[in-house]
Amino acid sequence: MHILDIIEKKKNKLPLSEQEIQFFIDGYVNDTIPDYQASALLMAIRINGLNFEETLHLTKSMLYSGETIDLSGIDGYKVDKHSTGGVGDKVTLIIAPIVAALDVKVAKLSGRGLGITGGTLDKLEAIEGVSIDLTEEQFINQVNDIGFAIAGQTQNIVPADKKLYALRDVTGTVDSLPLIASSIMSKKLASGADGMVLDVKYGSGAFCKTIEVAQDLAEIMIKIAEGFGKSIVTVLSSMNNPLGRTIGNKNEVKEAYDLLKNPDAADKNLLNTVIEVSTYMYEISSKKSHEEAKKAVLEVLHSDIPVQKFEAMVHAQRLTAEKSPIELDFEPKFSVDVIAPEGTTGFVKNIDAQTIGTISLDLGAGRHTKADVLDFFAGVEILKVKGDAIEAGDVIMKLYANKEVPAEFVEKALATMEYSETAIDPIDAKRVLKSKDLAE
Amino acid sequence: MHILDIIEKKKNKLPLSEQEIQFFIDGYVNDTIPDYQASALLMAIRINGLNFEETLHLTKSMLYSGETIDLSGIDGYKVDKHSTGGVGDKVTLIIAPIVAALDVKVAKLSGRGLGITGGTLDKLEAIEGVSIDLTEEQFINQVNDIGFAIAGQTQNIVPADKKLYALRDVTGTVDSLPLIASSIMSKKLASGADGMVLDVKYGSGAFCKTIEVAQDLAEIMIKIAEGFGKSIVTVLSSMNNPLGRTIGNKNEVKEAYDLLKNPDAADKNLLNTVIEVSTYMYEISSKKSHEEAKKAVLEVLHSDIPVQKFEAMVHAQRLTAEKSPIELDFEPKFSVDVIAPEGTTGFVKNIDAQTIGTISLDLGAGRHTKADVLDFFAGVEILKVKGDAIEAGDVIMKLYANKEVPAEFVEKALATMEYSETAIDPIDAKRVLKSKDLAE
Repeated sequence: MHILDIIEKKKNKLPLSEQEIQFFIDGYVNDTIPDYQASALLMAIRINGLNFEETLHLTKSMLYSGETIDLSGIDGYKVDKHSTGGVGDKVTLIIAPIVAALDVKVAKLSGRGLGITGGTLDKLEAIEGVSIDLTEEQFINQVNDIGFAIAGQTQNIVPADKKLYALRDVTGTVDSLPLIASSIMSKKLASGADGMVLDVKYGSGAFCKTIEVAQDLAEIMIKIAEGFGKSIVTVLSSMNNPLGRTIGNKNEVKEAYDLLKNPDAADKNLLNTVIEVSTYMYEISSKKSHEEAKKAVLEVLHSDIPVQKFEAMVHAQRLTAEKSPIELDFEPKFSVDVIAPEGTTGFVKNIDAQTIGTISLDLGAGRHTKADVLDFFAGVEILKVKGDAIEAGDVIMKLYANKEVPAEFVEKALATMEYSETAIDPIDAKRVLKSKDLAE
Repeated sequence: MHILDIIEKKKNKLPLSEQEIQFFIDGYVNDTIPDYQASALLMAIRINGLNFEETLHLTKSMLYSGETIDLSGIDGYKVDKHSTGGVGDKVTLIIAPIVAALDVKVAKLSGRGLGITGGTLDKLEAIEGVSIDLTEEQFINQVNDIGFAIAGQTQNIVPADKKLYALRDVTGTVDSLPLIASSIMSKKLASGADGMVLDVKYGSGAFCKTIEVAQDLAEIMIKIAEGFGKSIVTVLSSMNNPLGRTIGNKNEVKEAYDLLKNPDAADKNLLNTVIEVSTYMYEISSKKSHEEAKKAVLEVLHSDIPVQKFEAMVHAQRLTAEKSPIELDFEPKFSVDVIAPEGTTGFVKNIDAQTIGTISLDLGAGRHTKADVLDFFAGVEILKVKGDAIEAGDVIMKLYANKEVPAEFVEKALATMEYSETAIDPIDAKRVLKSKDLAE
């Protein structure tokens, strides 16, 4: 078999066999296929596509390119949760303690942020003393003890994806649904859960710019999960606006913690997403009806248990044995108000998530390249979210950083705002797709 | 400007600007754009194409990526000749002395063979003592003295093409008409001639498998030439069969020399191609009518002058000053006959050029990789060409090499033959396209 013949086939829109896909992945991982041939094939795939069989074979080849996680040491039903990424998405930090309170086991391997997309690991590390470097034993024990753990990958999970993703990032081949689906699903499948809920984001701040593209992606991922006998729910939710009222690291953890302490005071759209995702996670593991599952989630959310679970996780993942209180005082050195100018009136209709993500990134909350060091205090707080009434003089946002905030950031932030004369529903509608085994 | 934005555009079928194409070529030549990004863009170009404007800009960027040849030191009209390559194509060695005898100046920079496609430089070096390494001064002086010179590139001509072609060769992006057209034309334009005749091959042994593809390629190249104000004639000719009766190096030079000495005994199809190409070269430079030009070519071909020109070139390009006679004794160590088996009858209809090219290559006449050393005696002689009557027991071909010829080569050679019960015209029809300034 030769890589040139494989490139030739895909270039001419012919389907690749399981052996050909395996040959490509093996060769790329073990360095016998160079980057320049891999990128030519990736571009041919990006333009000419992969059918479902090819996508399944690709997922399988990537999945078995490295180690897989053995969760058999964890008692009970393990549910994974994944978001395709967005601006202000702190959902994982909130749902894990909620569903853990309902006896769902969440053994979560998370990633770091890159570009405008935040990463759960970075947010966790914004809590003084918390480590995401757990040994496999610590990780398994913590899930058994508390119900959940959130860690970075310690094992050699899906090395093919790491290498391919780095190449796709610099060759214009990220935006391919079969490549995205196989990248996400190979990692989810390697993580060893029994079922999973995927939060597929669409809109300005997400990879999928429209709900149609998000649905196409969700459908591929569901078919892949079915091919591996896994239960899956995909929740398609909007990322036109940032999710919740904070974008950054320390401020996002604080918003998550505050929601657990007092859900009724939380951002309505964020709360709605949290309840939906938690409900599906509980539904998958308990096999209860959606109504029953939702009722249980709402009940537990209004109890103290999720807060205790969150605190127990922080204490367990602290390198120091010391059980000091969780300090989330938010005191950035610089803070600038973004104020609604003269003539502003009506309701907030939209706040462009992509631009807010870029501002937050440039303030220091994110990474342009993997080597960048984060400012945990940098970020944006949105005081007037979608649906809020607004008038001239209102503080719409606050921009935070440990360095001086350039004046043009305020202009840029103001330009993200769209207003409506009539009232706007703050809660974005969601579309839900499930694997066949869960269909009612 | 960023290469990723350029890749993004072409991936999405948008045309690239002159500046973007220039940025790509400059960046690739000076190593600021890595291979893996160049190959992604090349694949996007291969699949989504380039319009004519883009192809012209690409040709220009490649042309000016290095030095160009200054032929102003040569008196008279300079005509270049190029073949898109094939099996047994020794036409350059024959037409250069013919048109030089008609006062057309041919300052020819040739290439080496790769794969089944032979190279004029290799054939020339099969003549004892001949060098293709001429200084610019030697080259110019020889064209002024004799009328033609055939040399390798001494200057840094179109470095972009050298680098891009090497990458295309290993990334499945060779078969793109705009990339082929800009590659050929940038080199032809850099060679400084006033006009050019391109022999565009199609069929089994050529890159263009059909005459339609060859015509598409010819039309792009004509438009590029017109864009640079150059006169051009493209001759579309078949490469389904090898050209002439020999494939190799030393045997091809001998066939060329023999044709000049006695054209009436030469292979009819080869002779026809030689007359056509020579006529168009003379027509471009003399502005005579096709009939007048052809008459002059036939007259001079039957004189002694072309043979004298050929011999003068050999003597001029010999490193030794010695004017020894041209030795073209063909005495390979091993020779195997391919004999028409029982039941064979009728006329030769077709001899698959690609397979014959592969046999010749594997006998040692060609290079699998650039590092391979040639056996000048290796090759194939075809005793029964297209149109010849044949019967069982006839020797169809002879396979030559300085190493033992494996028996399976005979089987393979026999399998290239197709027969007809009715007579076959040995001469392939040609299609000719010209630039507007030459149109009648």
